[in-house]
Amino acid sequence: MTSLKEQLKHKIDFKTKPLGSLGMLEEIAVQIGLIQNTLSPVLNKPTHIVFAGDHGLSSEGVSSYPKEVTYQMVLNFLNGGAAINVFCHQNNIQLKVVDAGVDADFDKSANLIHAKIGKGTKNILHKPAMSRDECQLAMKKGSTIVQHEFDNGCNIISFGEMGIGNTSSASLLMSKFCNIPIEQCTGRGTGHDDAGLKRKIEILTKVINKHLINHDPLEILSTFGGFEIAMMTGAMLKAFELKMIILVDGFITTSALITAYNINKSILANCIFCMQSDENGHKLMLEYLKAKPLLNIGLRLGEGTGAAIAFPLVQSAVKFLNEMASFESAGVSNKSE
Amino acid sequence: MTSLKEQLKHKIDFKTKPLGSLGMLEEIAVQIGLIQNTLSPVLNKPTHIVFAGDHGLSSEGVSSYPKEVTYQMVLNFLNGGAAINVFCHQNNIQLKVVDAGVDADFDKSANLIHAKIGKGTKNILHKPAMSRDECQLAMKKGSTIVQHEFDNGCNIISFGEMGIGNTSSASLLMSKFCNIPIEQCTGRGTGHDDAGLKRKIEILTKVINKHLINHDPLEILSTFGGFEIAMMTGAMLKAFELKMIILVDGFITTSALITAYNINKSILANCIFCMQSDENGHKLMLEYLKAKPLLNIGLRLGEGTGAAIAFPLVQSAVKFLNEMASFESAGVSNKSE
Repeated sequence: MTSLKEQLKHKIDFKTKPLGSLGMLEEIAVQIGLIQNTLSPVLNKPTHIVFAGDHGLSSEGVSSYPKEVTYQMVLNFLNGGAAINVFCHQNNIQLKVVDAGVDADFDKSANLIHAKIGKGTKNILHKPAMSRDECQLAMKKGSTIVQHEFDNGCNIISFGEMGIGNTSSASLLMSKFCNIPIEQCTGRGTGHDDAGLKRKIEILTKVINKHLINHDPLEILSTFGGFEIAMMTGAMLKAFELKMIILVDGFITTSALITAYNINKSILANCIFCMQSDENGHKLMLEYLKAKPLLNIGLRLGEGTGAAIAFPLVQSAVKFLNEMASFESAGVSNKSE
Repeated sequence: MTSLKEQLKHKIDFKTKPLGSLGMLEEIAVQIGLIQNTLSPVLNKPTHIVFAGDHGLSSEGVSSYPKEVTYQMVLNFLNGGAAINVFCHQNNIQLKVVDAGVDADFDKSANLIHAKIGKGTKNILHKPAMSRDECQLAMKKGSTIVQHEFDNGCNIISFGEMGIGNTSSASLLMSKFCNIPIEQCTGRGTGHDDAGLKRKIEILTKVINKHLINHDPLEILSTFGGFEIAMMTGAMLKAFELKMIILVDGFITTSALITAYNINKSILANCIFCMQSDENGHKLMLEYLKAKPLLNIGLRLGEGTGAAIAFPLVQSAVKFLNEMASFESAGVSNKSE
């Protein structure tokens, strides 16, 4: 008896097209068939979740935007004016916004998932970002949020984030988990000039020297992460457990995935890498995960926009697998050599 | 007074996102604004036209599929079973199929644009593919077909092709126009093994040595081209004249564009390059045109599928330009440094 993987390849190879000519879309079609354990996969209720949280380190000037922007951008999400709103709307992706730990109070009636762990993390120049308990609580909440979407019929999910200062956390997580010097993990974020980048590297070097910790995923995450990153990590692990397809975005999202991967290596089987970010370091993250991204078009916006933009390509992979005729059904002669 | 280009950049730079963070989508938004001479461009009735034609050279074994496949695949297009059907349907692109010169008779009632110039081209191992008159007639028909779509409200158009043997024509056009040795212009097409590729290069070398012609675009096109390629060339020139956006696909489509470019260099202003094909030679074609492709995911199917797959990315560019909030309108603080 042939394996499902062989059956999927056979189905693809007898479509009316030259062998292998849809490149990565063929690989994705096989992957999704394997995730869903079927020759005819479907994408149900695609959902994008943006986790927002503030970072104590932002008071050190690691970002070129003021901290208030996290709160302001959440309001922008709720009003439909941000990039992620536009791309989710374009591609019929349900968008959910989560307050994972913004340093401001939202109206209880706001169309927001209220999951605040705290009003921003601690300043990691001096203390761990969060306690182990807070970290576990954040992961648990992420897990619950994904379970809820799954229960509503979603089987393909992507994640994004908003948090002034969070490229710093992502760089630190990357440096620790991938064992790469912090300079190579640090980029311009939302737009540092050379001086700003130099300052950011100096601060992150101090941070990394301050915390001498074990290589324990939870300890690394609680020391250097953010509430939004910890919640996303828990969300990803749950999505894998529920056999959902996980669309992976850029630098910060991938830092959460790397954390999840260090907890459960199997998670990669369910991940489709949507883009290579222009943020310095993301290329090395993808190499660490041996991941090939769909897009490499200079994106570095955050919010999970790369995943939302790339979603139609994933749909194309499923659609050709389900909808194209075979040589036999179409009466087309196959290759003669 | 600031130029439209500056105004477009200004509009983009004050969207609620880090400066430049949508990469190529920002460049495309500016390009489309300039093509349509507006700060608020729209994409109307996206249309994809597949031109089909046969090639006399196919009798020499330059393709790994038998010639009958051109006709069979046109029937597959008409029945909705081909890859291009699936992707056009997915992305709400109107699909038109043109008989530019298939070596078979179609039912007059078929849902096909009947524009047959001849029943396949001559075998270019012995004679020019077509006469100068046939070439001009093909270009004229391509032009008329595009004018018709424009009159129906289409302002963004892409092209594809079907024609067993047509990678050989594309390689020859490339070699002549780009002044690159034929070996570097020749690839595996629909799937040659090493021996098949070697044979194909030998045949194309004979062909190129047989025809000592001037560097006149029409002479090169009529000598080495195909009816579908000539028709596509005329179609592209007309689309440019009508200020339409032209989505450029892979190897064969780009050979038509290179021909059009050698007739009117300005055409590139309206071209968005959708993908880099895995067909050997396409990378060099893109370099010749100084073009950056949106996708590089191993596509080499033909039919214009790369353009149809990439279309949502072009939509994303227009949508963020029109729909995203500005820092001011959203009440978000801008960069602090």
